[in-house]
Amino acid sequence: MSTPLTIALDAMGGDHAPEIVVEGASLARERFPNLRFLLFGDEAQLRPLLAKHPKLLEHSEIRHTDQVVTNDMKPAMALRNARNSSMRLAINAVHGGEAEGIVSAGNTGALMVLSTVVLKTLPGVDRAAIAGYLPSVRGDVVMLDLGANLDCDANNLVQFAIMGDVFAKTVLGLPEPAVGLLNVGEEDQKGHEYVREAAAILRESDFSLKFHGFVEGNDVLEGKVDVAVIDGFTGNVALKSAEGVVKFYSTLLKEAFQSSLLARFGYLFARSALRKVRERVDPRQYNGATMLGLNGVVVKSHGGTDALGFANAIGVAADMGSFGYNAKIIAEFERFETDRVPQTKTPTPA
Amino acid sequence: MSTPLTIALDAMGGDHAPEIVVEGASLARERFPNLRFLLFGDEAQLRPLLAKHPKLLEHSEIRHTDQVVTNDMKPAMALRNARNSSMRLAINAVHGGEAEGIVSAGNTGALMVLSTVVLKTLPGVDRAAIAGYLPSVRGDVVMLDLGANLDCDANNLVQFAIMGDVFAKTVLGLPEPAVGLLNVGEEDQKGHEYVREAAAILRESDFSLKFHGFVEGNDVLEGKVDVAVIDGFTGNVALKSAEGVVKFYSTLLKEAFQSSLLARFGYLFARSALRKVRERVDPRQYNGATMLGLNGVVVKSHGGTDALGFANAIGVAADMGSFGYNAKIIAEFERFETDRVPQTKTPTPA
Repeated sequence: MSTPLTIALDAMGGDHAPEIVVEGASLARERFPNLRFLLFGDEAQLRPLLAKHPKLLEHSEIRHTDQVVTNDMKPAMALRNARNSSMRLAINAVHGGEAEGIVSAGNTGALMVLSTVVLKTLPGVDRAAIAGYLPSVRGDVVMLDLGANLDCDANNLVQFAIMGDVFAKTVLGLPEPAVGLLNVGEEDQKGHEYVREAAAILRESDFSLKFHGFVEGNDVLEGKVDVAVIDGFTGNVALKSAEGVVKFYSTLLKEAFQSSLLARFGYLFARSALRKVRERVDPRQYNGATMLGLNGVVVKSHGGTDALGFANAIGVAADMGSFGYNAKIIAEFERFETDRVPQTKTPTPA
Repeated sequence: MSTPLTIALDAMGGDHAPEIVVEGASLARERFPNLRFLLFGDEAQLRPLLAKHPKLLEHSEIRHTDQVVTNDMKPAMALRNARNSSMRLAINAVHGGEAEGIVSAGNTGALMVLSTVVLKTLPGVDRAAIAGYLPSVRGDVVMLDLGANLDCDANNLVQFAIMGDVFAKTVLGLPEPAVGLLNVGEEDQKGHEYVREAAAILRESDFSLKFHGFVEGNDVLEGKVDVAVIDGFTGNVALKSAEGVVKFYSTLLKEAFQSSLLARFGYLFARSALRKVRERVDPRQYNGATMLGLNGVVVKSHGGTDALGFANAIGVAADMGSFGYNAKIIAEFERFETDRVPQTKTPTPA
């Protein structure tokens, strides 16, 4: 952790940029003192913000640009017309080798498309996937794809499984994560054909990952697996539904504790215990969806996050950079290509 | 509500059958005094249970059978080899006109297949769908399909939208429910092609339903719509993920309130307020997934539910029967067929 690690920041992306970007970077440096930042954005706004954080200022460099990818900009438009945007220039810095990774709280679709086009996928990786992590009874769970690929085939899911496995080992520090495929039941004959085919490949091949089999939606939160793999359409809807429940439940609790004088007293007594619950389900703790499989580390922060959330997103990039996530993926996919040879000999059903 | 309504009960289905079936029926009759029951199952077990509920006994009839569809029985096997099972005979009673609907806490796959084969879909309905309802900030939300159809086309989703709309009007009593299609974003160009095509049909046609457009997973719990429509694969994974979060959050809270003496005191003070929260998210309140679109009312109770949960599942069947759900669907689909004519003239993209 002592070699310096440079992260490019899209300082203008997100609802509360550039304030939370600068504050988030400052918080992140407290946890990762080896971090250096390249901040892409409006120098006139960034300069006074950085001035408040002298330590951060020492390890940061501002790269001025006026152009911004707005939230309502279509990805194709961002690709053609925003070549000098803070997001694009930050991605270019990763591509040019100046930075190990980029963190942005801006337009998700644009970040996905720009980083895929500029950085390209790692050797052997067909499609990049968005991974996030969420809490479970047993610890954190990595889930992917969360929306980069709406339609997937068996091979995509197998690749996502490998990328998620290495993420769990690298970022969550799990020695032997259990990897599951999300499905509508645990039995072999259940679900889409491509999901069953992916299971067959993962079961039969000599991967270095521990394949658990199928899991259902509720199993993820119960911590039956450490990595849950699914197509991007289902993953996106499921994750957002889960987030919706957390918000709903939290709202109900808040209302309940304000509903009577007795309940208010109760809250006062239980406050410190309840704070722990709130921290456990706090979306800021799980901020930082990652584009896995690209030639460079790309982390997307929630657009509406605060400085703490943004710092956590930087933390994900720092972990991936420090522990050589991409080098591990390249090595794993070389193994995978070798493993796959007997598999491709078997004709797949039409 | 005063004309008698007969419901066939699979008295042997579920983890705690036949006890909870009989007790659930007794509870249900307190709320729906016009209910009559045909109980299919082991008379030797049912007789003493019914004896404890004299009022229920008066309005019930036992139809003895020894055969049971077990939870691990494959649907095809149940279809071939369980012709005298409590589940099959209860479905037959609906088909024969003796009962308006059937409620079972047994094997979901078998119930789906047996009821589809025996009862068949209503005129105009291509595929039956499983609907459930869940709490939201603004009230209850109907969600379908929850797993009957893993692969759907645009027309299936349009039909599900109509069936969900009529369910919300009939069972939840909403005068003008807002219907949304679940998707990965709210913009027109997002998502699977068949989802966008379904949106185009719902937007352009002169249906009697109020089409809201696309919604995301979190919007459902926020109550942006009253009916959320999606393919059965995604719906199943999303619903079970949401259920998983409720369970996870409840576990965290329980642990928190037991973590210290102060927290225990806090719980005592806030107990009655917290009870309301618990009731609001209690899965028993939302028990009763319904097979919509079949020629007869079919309600599936959670296998592990208790008497209260089973009574709620009976309540769903009673509402659908009393308010003539299926007659409304038939009328709506006649309108739909008429409406669709101009639509089919437009060539659909390959």
